[in-house]
Amino acid sequence: MNGTRVAILSVGDELILGQIEDSNAPFLARELQRIGCMPGERRTIADDRAALAQALRELIAGNDAVIVTGGLGPTLDDITREALLDVIDSGKELQQDPAGIAHLHSWFAARGREMALSNLRQALRPPSARLLANPNGTAPGLAATFAACHVFCLPGPPAEMRPMFTAAVAPMLFDAQSVVLTAALHTIGLGESNIASQLNELMDRAREPLVGTTASDGVITIRVRATGTATAARTALEDSIRIIRERVGDIVFGRDEETLASSVGALMLARSLTLATAESCTGGLIGALVTDVAGSSAWYRGGFIPYENARKEVDLAVNANTIIAHGAVSHETAIELARGALARTGADYALSTTGIAGPSGGSESKPVGTVFIALARREGDVLSRRFLFPGNRAAVRSRAARMALACARVALLDDASRVLLWSEAEAIRVERC
Amino acid sequence: MNGTRVAILSVGDELILGQIEDSNAPFLARELQRIGCMPGERRTIADDRAALAQALRELIAGNDAVIVTGGLGPTLDDITREALLDVIDSGKELQQDPAGIAHLHSWFAARGREMALSNLRQALRPPSARLLANPNGTAPGLAATFAACHVFCLPGPPAEMRPMFTAAVAPMLFDAQSVVLTAALHTIGLGESNIASQLNELMDRAREPLVGTTASDGVITIRVRATGTATAARTALEDSIRIIRERVGDIVFGRDEETLASSVGALMLARSLTLATAESCTGGLIGALVTDVAGSSAWYRGGFIPYENARKEVDLAVNANTIIAHGAVSHETAIELARGALARTGADYALSTTGIAGPSGGSESKPVGTVFIALARREGDVLSRRFLFPGNRAAVRSRAARMALACARVALLDDASRVLLWSEAEAIRVERC
Repeated sequence: MNGTRVAILSVGDELILGQIEDSNAPFLARELQRIGCMPGERRTIADDRAALAQALRELIAGNDAVIVTGGLGPTLDDITREALLDVIDSGKELQQDPAGIAHLHSWFAARGREMALSNLRQALRPPSARLLANPNGTAPGLAATFAACHVFCLPGPPAEMRPMFTAAVAPMLFDAQSVVLTAALHTIGLGESNIASQLNELMDRAREPLVGTTASDGVITIRVRATGTATAARTALEDSIRIIRERVGDIVFGRDEETLASSVGALMLARSLTLATAESCTGGLIGALVTDVAGSSAWYRGGFIPYENARKEVDLAVNANTIIAHGAVSHETAIELARGALARTGADYALSTTGIAGPSGGSESKPVGTVFIALARREGDVLSRRFLFPGNRAAVRSRAARMALACARVALLDDASRVLLWSEAEAIRVERC
Repeated sequence: MNGTRVAILSVGDELILGQIEDSNAPFLARELQRIGCMPGERRTIADDRAALAQALRELIAGNDAVIVTGGLGPTLDDITREALLDVIDSGKELQQDPAGIAHLHSWFAARGREMALSNLRQALRPPSARLLANPNGTAPGLAATFAACHVFCLPGPPAEMRPMFTAAVAPMLFDAQSVVLTAALHTIGLGESNIASQLNELMDRAREPLVGTTASDGVITIRVRATGTATAARTALEDSIRIIRERVGDIVFGRDEETLASSVGALMLARSLTLATAESCTGGLIGALVTDVAGSSAWYRGGFIPYENARKEVDLAVNANTIIAHGAVSHETAIELARGALARTGADYALSTTGIAGPSGGSESKPVGTVFIALARREGDVLSRRFLFPGNRAAVRSRAARMALACARVALLDDASRVLLWSEAEAIRVERC
């Protein structure tokens, strides 16, 4: 990998203690790639002058640039200015910057507020650093070059940090010769190791572009990262994407921001089809995922949450004898739920779920995690699949809702890809609608 | 602050590149304080064996313990096992652990799935490390002691990492002399600055225990943090909680893990009442929040997602003329939806939502964010409230679902507290059921 390597250093007790999440570091990581830099190591340090100075020294030694966020406020626990001094101007003192003092006076004057004396700390800088203007707050940033490494100190509040990065840091670091482009392909229906064996040598750590996988709620995401000139990286990225799609095929449901629900919606819209839902164990999660997609009213008619058995019988015409004979959690009930939703709404496709999300309610034959997902198609078959999902109640429900959408998706594709999903299911039953 | 100092090291290209947020590090930081440890420096490293080994060496030298998350998967880009080997068993080779192999075989056998050979990598460990059992996934953790520092390597997925921390790491690091106890009181119905003025001097930054507030999706959470020996911290924490409850009263709906839905459920259960839902704009979110509560089948009968107008008319008996005269997004439709859900299910309470979540569909009289929430009570009134929620589609929907549950909650309490919620609504209409 080439390109300017930039380390990110976040400062603050509130980060170290886990009281707030650090959104600055991921933002900087993404922006750095866009301008041709490579995000390097990331560290988080408490409001501790010596620890921050030590981390700065180590990161300066190993990177082309270091971006520090936080610790530039007016109070005594803001120690970034002092730590930078210790590293780049050891033995000297901070000095007041006239432009910084002018900025502070005009900031408070414009707001008709009195300036606390402590704010004057914010106009201090190490002798060999310069200030970066902050149009969105009182704290100027700091920039310096030391041991051939660019060091930037930016304020912690994202509303101040982000514009300062764009205005003052990005132009200095921009490198058209080595942009880093990334893409994500989201899949469902095969396990991570199975996908890895299909990708095989593409996942070699020395390959360029780099290919890796991550897993979340049953969705396996294949990530590709290409580095080079803007044009070369784009070509290499798209080439890899094409090869990956050829290997893993229809299990890819979306790229980058696309979700399972939006991919189902696109397929439904393209064929002028509509969907309905009848959710027992997922209790509205599928509906929530579907209606999270803007414009879903064009393809989603609505649904039912038949949580108690009476709802299954009254709202979705499940036969009471079916529940007595096979249980509410069964192929038979799932199939009747899907049929009922189809008949009741006049939709083209209907999805149903019934299962045991836990923590109680499991049995030897139907342990916690057992979920039946049925899909009925008008003038077609109704197909029920039995799954056993791992994890706690929330995980079982989340996986079941996503797998249900995946079932709808493969039904909208050809038969060959459907086989993939079948391999995830424990048992399958098909009936005529 | 004293106690065992523990560094946190997160591993993964996807973190370095800012593709996913690291929720593990803040979780560990908070949990470490609960067991009397002090979170130390935090680092994030790419999937790079040499860089990880170097970071491990540096953190081992400066801390009493190091917790690594990620990099334990079955693929070649998972390099935590190898990096740990380089540090604690330099020059030796990873060895297969028989218990690890047995775990992998039984994991796949229990799921009726074939194990890819690559999974066997997950049973490897450095000779002087031991495996930590993972009941929630294939990757065992690793534990070792090197240079008087405890090193723990945990899997990256939070659903696997968290239980492993609790079961295998926390008991080893627990320090009764310097625990940090925290509590959170969740409120809905008053704004953050209003709550802050009631808490007043309790929020002084020099006070012990420390009190602060955070806001999310319309829920304001009051956080308390007490430090000291286990007994002293517990007493101080509960004293503060009692004082805060006295000041802010019934707007507190839950503590710590309690949710709006679980608090509604507890009130419903105590009075043997049941709930039904009819969700247009929230599309199943309320049902999903309700059924996320284990045991909710005792008080939740089920619901409807009447997304298209035909569903409102057919499933919930909304008069077609009502929709023509007042629109689907109106007090009138919300009231008929709630009445319909009540009549159809025989529940004691029924909640309905209808609104404009955006991004399109808004008008001058009903801008994006307009949501009507109605609550019907059997043999009581039906009360519809009009809200204007800020934010994008996801934020409007999430706030609407939470506010609907809050409406149910205040109806279950006395009249005095209901006034609080009314002040949040733009307009209110009450009719007999």
